[in-house]
Formats: sequence, C-alpha cells, structure tokens
Amino acid sequence: MSDKINRQIVLASRPNGEPSDENFRLVESSCPPVADGQVLLRTIYLSLDPYMRGRMSAAKSYANPVEVGAVMEGATVSEVVASNNKQFSPGDKVISYTGWQEFGLSDGSGLRKLPADLVDIKAALGVLGMPGMTAYMGLLKIGQPKAGETVVVSAASGAVGAVVGQIAKLRGCRVVGIAGVKEKCDYVVNELGFDACISHKEQDMAAQLQKACPKGIDVYFENVGGAVTEAVWPLLNPFARIPVCGLIAHYNAVELPAGPNRVPAVMRDVLTKRLTLRGFIVSDFMSEQAEFVAEMGDWLKQGKIKAKVDLVDGLENAPRAFQGLLRGENFGKLIVKVGPESAN
Amino acid sequence: MSDKINRQIVLASRPNGEPSDENFRLVESSCPPVADGQVLLRTIYLSLDPYMRGRMSAAKSYANPVEVGAVMEGATVSEVVASNNKQFSPGDKVISYTGWQEFGLSDGSGLRKLPADLVDIKAALGVLGMPGMTAYMGLLKIGQPKAGETVVVSAASGAVGAVVGQIAKLRGCRVVGIAGVKEKCDYVVNELGFDACISHKEQDMAAQLQKACPKGIDVYFENVGGAVTEAVWPLLNPFARIPVCGLIAHYNAVELPAGPNRVPAVMRDVLTKRLTLRGFIVSDFMSEQAEFVAEMGDWLKQGKIKAKVDLVDGLENAPRAFQGLLRGENFGKLIVKVGPESAN
Repeated sequence: MSDKINRQIVLASRPNGEPSDENFRLVESSCPPVADGQVLLRTIYLSLDPYMRGRMSAAKSYANPVEVGAVMEGATVSEVVASNNKQFSPGDKVISYTGWQEFGLSDGSGLRKLPADLVDIKAALGVLGMPGMTAYMGLLKIGQPKAGETVVVSAASGAVGAVVGQIAKLRGCRVVGIAGVKEKCDYVVNELGFDACISHKEQDMAAQLQKACPKGIDVYFENVGGAVTEAVWPLLNPFARIPVCGLIAHYNAVELPAGPNRVPAVMRDVLTKRLTLRGFIVSDFMSEQAEFVAEMGDWLKQGKIKAKVDLVDGLENAPRAFQGLLRGENFGKLIVKVGPESAN
Repeated sequence: MSDKINRQIVLASRPNGEPSDENFRLVESSCPPVADGQVLLRTIYLSLDPYMRGRMSAAKSYANPVEVGAVMEGATVSEVVASNNKQFSPGDKVISYTGWQEFGLSDGSGLRKLPADLVDIKAALGVLGMPGMTAYMGLLKIGQPKAGETVVVSAASGAVGAVVGQIAKLRGCRVVGIAGVKEKCDYVVNELGFDACISHKEQDMAAQLQKACPKGIDVYFENVGGAVTEAVWPLLNPFARIPVCGLIAHYNAVELPAGPNRVPAVMRDVLTKRLTLRGFIVSDFMSEQAEFVAEMGDWLKQGKIKAKVDLVDGLENAPRAFQGLLRGENFGKLIVKVGPESAN
C-alpha cells in the first residue's frame, strides 16, 4: 500500500477566535507501511463534532490538544485494507479514531467492529455512536427526567439534541427545543415530536421560552451556553438538573469573563434552587455502554428514534463544514464522506 | 400565663446591605392564651444562623421572608410551660421554631421532644441539630469523600464547617479549613484535627491554599462564596464535588452581578472538570434523618466529634450577636441563652 497517496488535514496553526482556512492545511504523503500488529484503515466516514474546537486550542481540557502540524483528531468509520493483526481482517468495518485523513494506522486498540447487521453504518457515528450515547447518558443518568416534567434542550436539531428530545418524549416529558433557523424548529416539532421549539435568533427568545414552559424547566440539557443559557436560567425550577454537555457558543471565545464575581452569582442560584450542575464526558459512562447499545438499538428498530445526517462529500470540504458547524450551519449530525462505502 | 410579659424581637425594617440595629425592634406583649391543642413554650435556647439574613430580605428564597413587624424566625430549645395538647406535658423540653421571643405558642406540629438522656441540650441546636445534620448530609451524600481525597471547608470553625472537617477526617481524608482569625485556624488544626487551615484575611490566601492542597481539591464544602470561592475554584480536581451549603459572604450584598456573562464562565468549568454543583437544604434529606441521628450520636458518645458553642446571654443581645455572626465574629456555634435551663 505504500505507493498509495494519503491525504491528511493537519492543524496548521491555532485559531484565535473563530477558526479559519489558514488554521488547516491539506498535506499529501505516502501511505505508511503496516508494522507487525497493525492494521491499515481506509476512512469511510469522519465525524465532525464541536468538541474538536477544543482540541485546536493549546489549553488542555479533558483531552490533550492536537499538536500544530498533526492530523486533526476525529472518529471515523473505516475499513481495514491491510492487516498484520489477527483480530482484524481486510474488509472489516470499524469505528476508529484515525482522524482527518484518508488512511490511518492502528494497533487495534480502541477499534470497534461494526455489527454485521448494521444497515446504515453512518449511524455508528451518530445516533448509535458518541452523540447518541452522549444524549442518552446525559439525559437519563444526570437529567433523570420524570413523566410530566419539562425538558429543554438547546441545539435541538443537532446530533445530540435531537436524541435528547426524543428520549425525553419517550419518558413522557414536555419537550421544548431551542434551535436556530425556523426549519430546524419545524423539524424537531413536526418530525421529531417535540412540543415546541424556540429560535434563538428571535429578539424575544426569552419571552417565547417562558411561554413554552408554563411550568418552568426541570431538565435543561446544555449544549450551547451564552444567551441561550441566560434565557433558560430564570426558568429553572427548584431541583432542576442541568447536564452540561457542551457550550458551543463559547468555543470560539477568545477570552472568558474573569474576576471575583464570576462564580458567586451562579452559586447563589445553585444554592437557593438546589440545582445540580455536573459536567460530564461520555467516556465517564463507558461501563454502562452495553445498556445504551441495547436500548437505543431497540428504539431504532422500532422507529422510535430518528436521526438526521448532514453529509458532506470529500475530505477537503471538512474544514469549511466544521467552521459552519460552529456557526450552526449544519443540519443534523454532520458527517464527512471521505470515500466510498465499498472499496473499488 | 397571660399576665406574664413576653419579650419579642421583631423585624422592624428590611436591611439594605448589612443589618443594623434599626432593623430590629424589641417589643413587649402579654403572653398569649393557650388554645385547645396548643402548648405554651418558654424559650431556653435560640439558635442564630446565617440563613436568617435571607429571611430578612423581601426576596423569596427557599423559604418565605419574615414579614416586617413579625417575630424573627429561628429554632429554639424550649420548655413546655402549659399544655392543652395531649402529646406534651409541662416540663417537656423540645426543639421548636418559635423564633426570637421568650414565649411562643405551638400546635405541636414540628415540635420534637429532646431525648431524656441528652446531657447538653444546646447540642440539639448544634452538632445534633440542624447545623450538624447539614454538615453530615452535605458532606456524605453530596460530597461523598473517599479516603485519601482532599476536602476543603470554608467557615471551618463554624457550626457546620467544624463538623464537616471532622467527619471528613473520620473518612480518612486530608482536610483543609479556611477561616478568619488565627485562633480559629489554630483551633480546627490543633483541637479538631484538621490537617491545615488558611486564613482568608491573608493577602496570599490563594497561594497558601494551593500549598496546603498539593493534590488539588476533591470536595469543597461551600459555606462562604466570594474571594474564598475564587481561591478554591482553580484548585478543583476533575470530578470534584461541591456541596453548596451557604454563601455568607454574599448575604449582605445589595446586588449581585448580572448580565450575559455571569453564567457561562462557571459552566465552562463545570463542563471540563465534570463538576457536580448541587445546592441543598437540609430538609431535602429529612427522610434520612434517623441515620444521621444514630451515627452522630455514636460519634459524640465516642468523643469523635467536638462541638464548640458561642453562647450569648440574653435575648436582647441577639441582634448584635447576629450582626457579628455575619461578620464572622462568633467562634463556634452561636447560640443565645434566653432563659435558664430549668424554670424557677
């Protein structure tokens, strides 16, 4: 395979604020040789997710940043094209973390074979993958919604938010989404069965949200931060649970507010309303993954969960797609198609 | 009893900022008649607690404010002096919520008889009462400290903080207190067995705290807010638990910071460190009270928990004592002795 060309997107420089084209660079190299124990993977689908913005910054979050010059990280659905590892054979399709490149090497650790009966392998990056599990764990383990309660989810039409709202409906909750453009709102209401959806582009978002939540908010699934959170905050009921999953409105922020007063005002609300604020990362719940896979699998088979995919064709379009993602321009789970589902 | 004089402290006006003498008024009235089903209670001990500052303000918190002109609320150890209620006999000693007055009426609801073998009945307002239970529940149910972890508690020598630190030591934690004057720090280290204690009056509090917590902070028991919280915040470890019990530094604040940026900066930390922020009120845990009473009772008998009382003599001194409490001038559980332990 070493005569093949491998195209990769590397981090050219760290963004200051919103990432731009200059922060990425497409490079070509020859496919690396496959050492003993390794497999060579051909990327089929690369998942793009908001968390990647964090990896572009130098600051250590829960994961290390991508080094400048290194391949951008990301989950993929890949096919084994060469194997020096007994556990994998050419033709196997796997979830891998080989990132933004056409070919990648793996020693097999962290690779997960896709179930043979999976009709749509893209689902392994969406509703059956990390975003779906994020929604499931965050809502059920932290949010703990009860029938009759009001659940609000921001980025409602996104990969995580759409699943959150649907599970909450299955649990008998009133579900109110917050999204951008009208068509996203229409989608989550008309197709996913949300009870209401507010556009955060409306001047009177806060008033609309209040009207849509006449009994207040019991669970706020946080994907956004910023003005959306500010609109939600006063409506939180005592004992409200807030799974803090993402803060996409801040990922491009150059600097966060600081100073002696930034913590206490929040603390006061946490106290008087006995809020539970608890951030989480899906990997915190790895030990409960089997439960998720089983239940979500059933829901999908029964058509109780829908998943929308925003498919972008071609690795070279990934940077632009990702920038759009941070501006909310995608619609559904954003996935880049890097190559065909079957090798020629 | 109606020929007896009842002295009461009523809320004269609502404070703007720090409460002053003018906000309280001592009034005299005759003892009320005891209706059918009622008991007349003579106050022995009145507990003064930071939460009362909240009741003086018009804003509804988790409890309703005290009305202007009404008797200030508070827990007491009282003696039944007249009873038209079969469940209580004259001479019974009870915990009641008759507030800042010498005599009070009760229909028996919410009264709790003190155990006959309780040697020091003041303990019913402190380590065996609301502050002790607050410490126990907040630390064990929310903080969930594990042996070897670092627990930091602010207002470390206070009614709650002192119990928190001691329980954490019993659980095998490294315990660091934050308190005001040096003698409080010395007390919690030398007498209560804390590993260290930092004075928040020191300019370099943050640096000292960092030095005292070389492995970061796993549980921060929040009693204070403000600059203390700011010093703690950067030291919080991933998965740190923060039982938010009180924010005494803010209780006198005329206005809290507002605006679109007050929430997100905190949220970011909650996310990346997967912090659990959950406010609580001790009454949330009423169903688990028996467990607390049993275990704390054992610890007291075994001398494993010490409790310091700051006793103020005379109801008329309650307002000043309370103002001092908000400035941190008390030392130990602040209790006002309103009358003798045995009636003449």
